[in-house]
Amino acid sequence: MGVEYDGTDFHGWQIQSGVRTVQAVLEEAISRVANHPLGVHCAGRTDTGVHGLEQVLHFETTAARSERSWVLGANVNLPPDVAVRWAHPVPDDFHARFSAVARHYRYRIQVRRTRSALYRSRAVWVHEALDLERMREAARFLVGEHDFTSFRAVACQAKSPVRRVHYLDVVEDEEGLITLRVGANGFLHHMVRNIAGVLIAVGRSEAPVTWTRELLEVRDRTLGGVTAPPHGLYFVRADYPERFALPQVEKTDPLQRLSDD
Amino acid sequence: MGVEYDGTDFHGWQIQSGVRTVQAVLEEAISRVANHPLGVHCAGRTDTGVHGLEQVLHFETTAARSERSWVLGANVNLPPDVAVRWAHPVPDDFHARFSAVARHYRYRIQVRRTRSALYRSRAVWVHEALDLERMREAARFLVGEHDFTSFRAVACQAKSPVRRVHYLDVVEDEEGLITLRVGANGFLHHMVRNIAGVLIAVGRSEAPVTWTRELLEVRDRTLGGVTAPPHGLYFVRADYPERFALPQVEKTDPLQRLSDD
Repeated sequence: MGVEYDGTDFHGWQIQSGVRTVQAVLEEAISRVANHPLGVHCAGRTDTGVHGLEQVLHFETTAARSERSWVLGANVNLPPDVAVRWAHPVPDDFHARFSAVARHYRYRIQVRRTRSALYRSRAVWVHEALDLERMREAARFLVGEHDFTSFRAVACQAKSPVRRVHYLDVVEDEEGLITLRVGANGFLHHMVRNIAGVLIAVGRSEAPVTWTRELLEVRDRTLGGVTAPPHGLYFVRADYPERFALPQVEKTDPLQRLSDD
Repeated sequence: MGVEYDGTDFHGWQIQSGVRTVQAVLEEAISRVANHPLGVHCAGRTDTGVHGLEQVLHFETTAARSERSWVLGANVNLPPDVAVRWAHPVPDDFHARFSAVARHYRYRIQVRRTRSALYRSRAVWVHEALDLERMREAARFLVGEHDFTSFRAVACQAKSPVRRVHYLDVVEDEEGLITLRVGANGFLHHMVRNIAGVLIAVGRSEAPVTWTRELLEVRDRTLGGVTAPPHGLYFVRADYPERFALPQVEKTDPLQRLSDD
């Protein structure tokens, strides 16, 4: 399934007792459609406040339903801040997390003198103007295969700190919203938010444009920047081998996706 | 003052006892900064669920505060879904409503097969593809000075049903969101939402592109389309004579604003 969610009122993806999580409301809704209890697995677990545009999840079921029935049935049972966008049958060897060959995120920044009401939970607010050219220069050092130790959370469980970043660009839209777009074969815990924290500091000229390169070299999280807030972060999509033929909707530049060759 | 608000959790602008309104929370917050009770008047009152990007309001006060103090003081006392963007002193003859020479709105439409979690209160959801060229053709008939009787709410209190629409265009952004942009010397009650309802029907090919012209001619609200839902509507800005020198932020195409000459 492809799933969209507004992360504002969730304690992140993963089930925890006593709090509202995206995984919990999805398992409850989909179990009702399946008419038996089931568990779901996603492409990339998200933290409290982080949004999903097209998170991918899979589950095992004995129920036979049309794609349309899974989608409509789940949406009727889901709260307004979670919505299923599509459903598609997959073979037994598919795993939303382990079959994914790349993941794509966006991080949104709103530059304003005063706080915003409409974007309060959709973009991080920065008071001062950001120098986008400086941010782009700093971003360039992160593209490619690197040891991202300086950009991973201390609690990160991943065995290897090496990831390949396919692209990392900085774009500005007509309304002045700045978006960092990043794709990689995988991300470490807090990696996008730590990259965003560093790039915002560079954009404010609080750090040199070579800071990203220096951080890659020192491999020390304690020398890194602040972790940017979660509510600017969006999980956009995950890429899978073509044979699964998932009806995914969110687009990333195909040239960017091919740049890993 | 220029004010932004997320209309989702408000029963509209105007004070009513027992419900949460934008005017009420603003009067309470600004009164605290002024240290005396005061009332505010806005450029264009909005209904339940309608958003404001840069609503303009004025009030009378005996307090002397810097522009910065009014803004910061109000924002500290306002809830997260309302924010003051700027403050500026005006002469006694300024009135947020009566001095405005034009008003600008946007109406956002999201075309999707399934409902959206992130846009659930920010854009109206339409299942079927819309033919934007048909919508643009139909929109053209509404530009200029017309009797908008067929587009006003039955309860509308305005003395005259004649308004001059400066521009009405239909644009689509990269993410597939469709936005109606409209500016006029003034709007009747529900006029933008009634225009949106008609244009959506035309875009779905449920009505001919000439329906807008026919509705102008018959001057009968009962023959008009459905009123489109409030949560797609945004009050964008109001225009005032240059002598007031308001530090307004939201832009509309200046050529569009000059087209009234």
